Amino acid sequence: MQTKRLGPQTLRLSHPPSVVSFANIGGKMEGEGPLADFFDNLSTDSFFGAKTWEQGESVMQHRALETALEKGGLTASDLDFVLAGDLLNQCIGTTFALRNFHVPFYGIYGACSTMGEGLSLASLLLDGGFAHLAAAMTSSHYCAAERQFRMPTPYGNQRTPTAQWTATAAGCCILGAQGDGPYITHVTCGKIVDMGITDVNNMGAAMAPAAYDTLRAHFQATGEKPKDYDLILTGDLGALGHEIVIDLFANDGIDMKKNYHDCGLLLYDLEGQDMHAGGSGCGCSASVLCGYLLQGMQKKRWNRILFAPTGALLSPVSSFQGQSIPGICHAVVFSNEKGDVQ
Amino acid sequence: MQTKRLGPQTLRLSHPPSVVSFANIGGKMEGEGPLADFFDNLSTDSFFGAKTWEQGESVMQHRALETALEKGGLTASDLDFVLAGDLLNQCIGTTFALRNFHVPFYGIYGACSTMGEGLSLASLLLDGGFAHLAAAMTSSHYCAAERQFRMPTPYGNQRTPTAQWTATAAGCCILGAQGDGPYITHVTCGKIVDMGITDVNNMGAAMAPAAYDTLRAHFQATGEKPKDYDLILTGDLGALGHEIVIDLFANDGIDMKKNYHDCGLLLYDLEGQDMHAGGSGCGCSASVLCGYLLQGMQKKRWNRILFAPTGALLSPVSSFQGQSIPGICHAVVFSNEKGDVQ
Repeated sequence: MQTKRLGPQTLRLSHPPSVVSFANIGGKMEGEGPLADFFDNLSTDSFFGAKTWEQGESVMQHRALETALEKGGLTASDLDFVLAGDLLNQCIGTTFALRNFHVPFYGIYGACSTMGEGLSLASLLLDGGFAHLAAAMTSSHYCAAERQFRMPTPYGNQRTPTAQWTATAAGCCILGAQGDGPYITHVTCGKIVDMGITDVNNMGAAMAPAAYDTLRAHFQATGEKPKDYDLILTGDLGALGHEIVIDLFANDGIDMKKNYHDCGLLLYDLEGQDMHAGGSGCGCSASVLCGYLLQGMQKKRWNRILFAPTGALLSPVSSFQGQSIPGICHAVVFSNEKGDVQ
Repeated sequence: MQTKRLGPQTLRLSHPPSVVSFANIGGKMEGEGPLADFFDNLSTDSFFGAKTWEQGESVMQHRALETALEKGGLTASDLDFVLAGDLLNQCIGTTFALRNFHVPFYGIYGACSTMGEGLSLASLLLDGGFAHLAAAMTSSHYCAAERQFRMPTPYGNQRTPTAQWTATAAGCCILGAQGDGPYITHVTCGKIVDMGITDVNNMGAAMAPAAYDTLRAHFQATGEKPKDYDLILTGDLGALGHEIVIDLFANDGIDMKKNYHDCGLLLYDLEGQDMHAGGSGCGCSASVLCGYLLQGMQKKRWNRILFAPTGALLSPVSSFQGQSIPGICHAVVFSNEKGDVQ
């Protein structure tokens, strides 16, 4: 067993799986944002040709997987596993997207940490020799999420300053036992962290402690520091959560300011697009990864990225019942060096 | 890589993980059923001391994990991973149960196949050398599920003859790299199967084709036949789904009648307890496994069991939008022989 358990949550992979192909799909707002050029497919139709927003979300995941397969010269039957999930009740965005692909499927639920969880499990299954190719995928849809978690969008509900904007986007990353990179070299599995935040319009504050917990565990296990990465990215903490993570590390004497960013701050022009605290949703970090970030790594703009999406593990029912918001964060290291020696 | 991929969905494990400990929790109806003596903890209070049914479901999972740890002489910090999920929106039964355990957690969603999925992933993580101990856990709650998926129970809604009864139960199984068995020797990952059934009061018919698909893939990959098992168990197909699986195999010339049973037919006295087509819910197969079945294996009543829970991957929203019901089935082999040579 060459894979080394570096700490209670962190594994260094002995056969780092490679990114083989990736694709992302976005909606209207994503197409008007600063990362528009990094999407494979953008639609101004929020239904994506389907009859409902929920079915539209399934179309996005269907297209994301289809596009990633095409770009990699693969067919669905080449995949040993798909690990996917989404925010909709019972993960119907995923299950209805996949029902015609006939692929071995493990459904996952990590809220907006889903892409981190899917990449982690896919990497471990590949490193363990259980698969040659495995896909991680997720999505979110602004209109479907709003009516499920908050208010149907036609109500024109006022948003608070700390509110975030659920991305209408999907991302799919196919990993392989063979490939030319980028490689996933480390996996850090998150723990649930609940600091008692109850404001469902302030997810950034609720999830930031989970991001801090996982990133800290990762640094402790690997002996690394923020400067050992070209980029450290959380998924969708937004402006406030991003600041909280910086503050929490500052208390430990660790400076995160230089290279720590958040996908929710990258996907949109916050002021120009009236996005308040930033983007959110499973599709936010997944679509930023499966376009802007992985393309940037392929072009050597960055050689080593710590990708750490966070999820808020609540439901409207738990909030109505007065419960606070548990968070979780799953992290993976992408490196252009297979023999990442850190 | 000694683990052998026997077929597109089936893996034979090279280091079969062992059951280290297990526990189950049940409610009032489970305590009045024929398997009452096989539960660790039964409660006549449907709230399990909490204020709501959803929180009661979390109490069940909390107790299931706590009891399994106690019975195994373990603490939460001994666990490298917990793989768990449930039927409630955003899996709050699981996340609120786990938030005080501080364990590395991968959330899964496989509807009522969750215990099969959790055991599969936990086994692969152990076989791959990524963990020493990992737990698989799930639950369901009749009252919480009814008001989420159908009607709040106080409405006294009439149930159809094909309707099933969601078990108020939880099961937790801790697997280890070391142990005296029973061992998990094979894992077969399911594919989504949707045969166009739209009747949400007939889940057995919707899920039976998925059970058939996974069991057939398992038999094809291993070269085995039903007679090679002491017992073959689906999770919660109930009376009708169980018959359909037998019929589908009969069309292939395979006789399943001798040793194929369904956990939904075991958990209750169908007629005496007015259970219509049988038990259902994630907690049904999980609680039958983590009591009756694993105790029976330890006493050598059975030496080889093919455990194959099925899940219906719909939501009320997908049904209201006219969609049919996709199903999935994840199977694992439990054997008293570590060097299971099949």
